[in-house]
Amino acid sequence: MKTIRVETQRPYSVKIGRGLLCAAGDHIAKVHPSCTATLVADQTVAGLYGQRVRHTLEAAGFRVVDYTLPPGEGSKTMENLEHLLSFLAGHRLGRGDLIVALGGGVTGDLAGFGAAVYQRGMSYVQLPTTLLAAVDSSVGGKTAVNLPEGKNLVGAFWQPKLVLCDCDSFVSLPAAELSAGAAECLKYGMLGDPVLFDRLAREGLNTDWADIVAACVAAKADIVRTDEREAGPRRLLNLGHTFGHAIEQLSGFSLRHGEGVALGLLMITRAAERKGLCEPGLSGRVIEALRALNLPTRCPYDTVSLTKAALGDKKRQGDQIALVLPRALGDCFIHSIAVSELSEWIKLGLEDLP
Amino acid sequence: MKTIRVETQRPYSVKIGRGLLCAAGDHIAKVHPSCTATLVADQTVAGLYGQRVRHTLEAAGFRVVDYTLPPGEGSKTMENLEHLLSFLAGHRLGRGDLIVALGGGVTGDLAGFGAAVYQRGMSYVQLPTTLLAAVDSSVGGKTAVNLPEGKNLVGAFWQPKLVLCDCDSFVSLPAAELSAGAAECLKYGMLGDPVLFDRLAREGLNTDWADIVAACVAAKADIVRTDEREAGPRRLLNLGHTFGHAIEQLSGFSLRHGEGVALGLLMITRAAERKGLCEPGLSGRVIEALRALNLPTRCPYDTVSLTKAALGDKKRQGDQIALVLPRALGDCFIHSIAVSELSEWIKLGLEDLP
Repeated sequence: MKTIRVETQRPYSVKIGRGLLCAAGDHIAKVHPSCTATLVADQTVAGLYGQRVRHTLEAAGFRVVDYTLPPGEGSKTMENLEHLLSFLAGHRLGRGDLIVALGGGVTGDLAGFGAAVYQRGMSYVQLPTTLLAAVDSSVGGKTAVNLPEGKNLVGAFWQPKLVLCDCDSFVSLPAAELSAGAAECLKYGMLGDPVLFDRLAREGLNTDWADIVAACVAAKADIVRTDEREAGPRRLLNLGHTFGHAIEQLSGFSLRHGEGVALGLLMITRAAERKGLCEPGLSGRVIEALRALNLPTRCPYDTVSLTKAALGDKKRQGDQIALVLPRALGDCFIHSIAVSELSEWIKLGLEDLP
Repeated sequence: MKTIRVETQRPYSVKIGRGLLCAAGDHIAKVHPSCTATLVADQTVAGLYGQRVRHTLEAAGFRVVDYTLPPGEGSKTMENLEHLLSFLAGHRLGRGDLIVALGGGVTGDLAGFGAAVYQRGMSYVQLPTTLLAAVDSSVGGKTAVNLPEGKNLVGAFWQPKLVLCDCDSFVSLPAAELSAGAAECLKYGMLGDPVLFDRLAREGLNTDWADIVAACVAAKADIVRTDEREAGPRRLLNLGHTFGHAIEQLSGFSLRHGEGVALGLLMITRAAERKGLCEPGLSGRVIEALRALNLPTRCPYDTVSLTKAALGDKKRQGDQIALVLPRALGDCFIHSIAVSELSEWIKLGLEDLP
């Protein structure tokens, strides 16, 4: 088991290993006194791992109540948030109780946001069961739900008490889900870890995921420590996300977040290259890596639709929008452009894709 | 004009005086760069002061969009929160924009919570137009909406950038609203300011409200500074609120918050007296003060209903519930009781009320 410490205002550990779900109760009992734990999971994950986690929590002295939601990004709504909050209130839970988020990013984001606002804040732990959640949403305390107007438009920065990542759970993932998670791993490689990038491009999906997750979480913990509320450096983590979110949104969330990010990474690299801001040839390497990970390299949307969708993005500040650009492999920077320039950037990112 | 500094993690000022609404734009421009300001007010307050505030904001360089909600506690719902958030998203507001909450506690709580969660946090300023909001909800960063299960069950600690309290706006308050606000002022007297308590009991509603508000805000700022997230001393501010919230909830919010608090102050004092934990005679002084302020001294609900309603309260922690008790005038303390004892406390608080 690897342990990575996230040094936010209220520090916590991310533990990564195999078989951790069966020992979750003991790990959680070390960071939280016994109480009522609300186990939040979607129907799929509840069916796979719900009983196992319930038993280990009960064995460790927690009273457990189950809250199940429908699977999919469509569940990250204000309506479902209110439903969860009413469930907590109906069970008369207090600030001293606990939420245990078991599953992917949708579950973690919704349950984490619920924990952030129920009675103005209660504790929660993250048990990510997807690669994407393990390296992305479960660490760093960004919680959110979507609005019809856009993704993650409502949320809070609210750190978990503990993150337990059981890499054994990745075996239950559909291949496309594993690929989608790998897109975020590739992002960490582009941001600061060329060795990680090359390993992913070389080994593809047949790699040691505990190693990969640990490298990604360590990179993220490093950035989050310096900028918990995303005022500066943390915005680097949005590499590939401005276009990625727009693509995901245009697909009505039928494209996976990681698939959007994969295309977003490629488009922003290509646009930066063509603007002369990035070393030539990087977009070619990104394409090779995406192919090795079974990720898409073709964007199904046009400049006009993408521009419109991207304009609702949180990275916008008045007339400016902050893009994260690669300068070279492992070296990225934030670059503000005028909102009016955005469509040109998108056009450059889309043109002549192989 | 009096200025009180609230030394939270992100400090801000509370300015109290007369005619401040007409100069709001200049005051706000000193703490926030020009941007789009969403002016949130209920229909009543928008009609009274909306134009005035809009003009001063525009004159100070802000672009203003108006968001109006129906008046009353019934507006503090998750549904209205989502409506506000969709409005912000529909106007493509960003993290760098501003919410201006103009009105009473309902508007401030809803708009403040919207600011706390829109894009994970944007800035807001409070322009309280009621005595209650001026001394209570506008200062200290507690924002919330209600659930059907109970009051303020969902929210965030999110500090405003500035609070501007124009005491001239109290003249538009119905007399009963002024009385309701005075109940919270009385609470500050009981917590630590016998001079304030006696002045209210002596002068009743014919007093200099700028003085009173300044004394209350200074007291609150003192407590909030030491305990921003209500882990300890800040819970003292809940004096009268455990029973008060239950009363308010049982009335279907037809009783005002301040009326509930008035009865809650009396009940808890009486119960503490009869338990031998408070100096004899204080409940008599509370009754005199409540009468001078035209506040109720009779509770229309019975022990069983009140106990049930109070059990959903946030002050509950597992099997314990934290009551705030007066020991003497100006001296209060937190006292944990078993949940099973609550009904006895309520019974003692209700019996033999004059």
